[in-house]
Amino acid sequence: MIVALAGGVGGAKLAHGLALSIPPEDLTVVINTADDFRLYGLYISPDIDTVMYTLAGIANPQTGWGVQGDTTNALEMIARYGRDTWFLIGDRDLATHVLRTELLSSGRTITQVTSELATALGVRSKLLPMCNEPVSTTIFATDGRVLEFQEYFVRYRHEPEVARVEFAGIDRAQATQEVLAAIRSAEFIVFCPSNPFVSIGPILNVRGIRGAIDASSAPKVAVSPIVGGSAIKGPAADMMRSMGFEVSPLGIAKYYRGIVNGIVIDNIDADLEENVRSLGLSVLVTNTIMNTVEDRQRLARELLAFGSKLMSEVSVS
Amino acid sequence: MIVALAGGVGGAKLAHGLALSIPPEDLTVVINTADDFRLYGLYISPDIDTVMYTLAGIANPQTGWGVQGDTTNALEMIARYGRDTWFLIGDRDLATHVLRTELLSSGRTITQVTSELATALGVRSKLLPMCNEPVSTTIFATDGRVLEFQEYFVRYRHEPEVARVEFAGIDRAQATQEVLAAIRSAEFIVFCPSNPFVSIGPILNVRGIRGAIDASSAPKVAVSPIVGGSAIKGPAADMMRSMGFEVSPLGIAKYYRGIVNGIVIDNIDADLEENVRSLGLSVLVTNTIMNTVEDRQRLARELLAFGSKLMSEVSVS
Repeated sequence: MIVALAGGVGGAKLAHGLALSIPPEDLTVVINTADDFRLYGLYISPDIDTVMYTLAGIANPQTGWGVQGDTTNALEMIARYGRDTWFLIGDRDLATHVLRTELLSSGRTITQVTSELATALGVRSKLLPMCNEPVSTTIFATDGRVLEFQEYFVRYRHEPEVARVEFAGIDRAQATQEVLAAIRSAEFIVFCPSNPFVSIGPILNVRGIRGAIDASSAPKVAVSPIVGGSAIKGPAADMMRSMGFEVSPLGIAKYYRGIVNGIVIDNIDADLEENVRSLGLSVLVTNTIMNTVEDRQRLARELLAFGSKLMSEVSVS
Repeated sequence: MIVALAGGVGGAKLAHGLALSIPPEDLTVVINTADDFRLYGLYISPDIDTVMYTLAGIANPQTGWGVQGDTTNALEMIARYGRDTWFLIGDRDLATHVLRTELLSSGRTITQVTSELATALGVRSKLLPMCNEPVSTTIFATDGRVLEFQEYFVRYRHEPEVARVEFAGIDRAQATQEVLAAIRSAEFIVFCPSNPFVSIGPILNVRGIRGAIDASSAPKVAVSPIVGGSAIKGPAADMMRSMGFEVSPLGIAKYYRGIVNGIVIDNIDADLEENVRSLGLSVLVTNTIMNTVEDRQRLARELLAFGSKLMSEVSVS
């Protein structure tokens, strides 16, 4: 049993690689929901959707998010009604938001709704939102702007410099029984190459999750989302810089030190291997870029082998 | 100032003809909302949408409802999620339902929401829902089935024989100030060729509307939706038959007797002119089939001339 903590595109790709490398039922993906938000009255869970579409094999391969071959006629009509349409919603994607909103309104939890939607799309791995309580991410920019996360990320293309991030509702968020059970039975815990501040961070701050991870004797490995001094996608690098972190896998290693046993860094950062190791972490140096489905599988298999090695080391020590 | 009472496609076409024949601002369309319903958590107003799309010039010319050139990707995705998709919703059309639902949730009335959406689409005539209260139509079939109106109409293609129709909520429905003001200032009141039982009937049963119409000295004319013994579209003929009405313009005339001054019947039913006249109604015999936009305009102009003639008769008498 493997647990992967994931945000959006990078996390989804690695989770997909894992689901293709082991019996998919043996994988549980714990997904960030701190950037969920409402738009046009619809409840949108960007990271759940990205992981769900990716594991269902229907994600747009160009973007990594959204549905392959989707159209945007509804959004064009919404624009015709005079509304802002900076958040790109495809027509097939809109169906997901509509049904999720309906199911949530009927009193189901986001955990139940996610399970229902993912199962209908043929996803055999377990997709678990990090919690059932609503959490929302606010970005405080250095220029004084206060932005909803998706506004910052999509509308303003993560250009504003980030002074501070706030997760409203995180204090009331509690690990679900499903998440705790998955972590307890995990033989390997993977921290996907997602933004440590706004994707993995919120998951770790849900009450009960960090404790369960710390209590687990399974090997824990983070895959660095920083490759060669920049993020493969998204604002992780800019955020690290403006928040005083070192924008490198070493910065990532320092962030996760005390939580994980090992780090996976890219070949391009091989010169940092010893520095990471000196933090007391095991290191796997490999190609971490996942351009193709084969890349995802290869990285997943190397990660699984790295996990097994760590497991035997843990057993020996 | 002209007021047209309308249901779906037939009513929308005539209203469109009127809007093209007079300054569009001088037309108010009072629209049936008794077949509004919720689907996938969305509030759907089929007749409002049909009138709105038609007057905005974006209705699907093949069907008369839905948006021209629309796609159905969202609906296909909804089917993929395992849900029933018997009610055809195009992607552009879905945008309307999403925004209407959002605006209603924010506390606006359906009158306000309709005005906002129609204005955004460039409709210059006033589109008024018959009331702000929710009304829903239940069909009791002779075989014992109890069906929501859209289930009966769309899912079962109005094949079940109708024993009885119930309008839940109609007792609490009240004419809005907007509808009453429009009727009071009307110089001509048109009963569009819509189903008298399930489209015009509910409008007339909203508290205050029938009284305002009766109190108006404007000429009132109904255009028969029955042509040559059958309905141009929809279940009007079957309903009339199973409810004991004569399926002919004469049956329509008997239904509207005491409410209207005049009836418009099709050339094909010219032999019934004298029978209708003998009910004390003025009659215009003309081509009532509206296949093209030109047909709509021609019928509207003849109707306006007929109304003027009735007005002078009313003044003289």
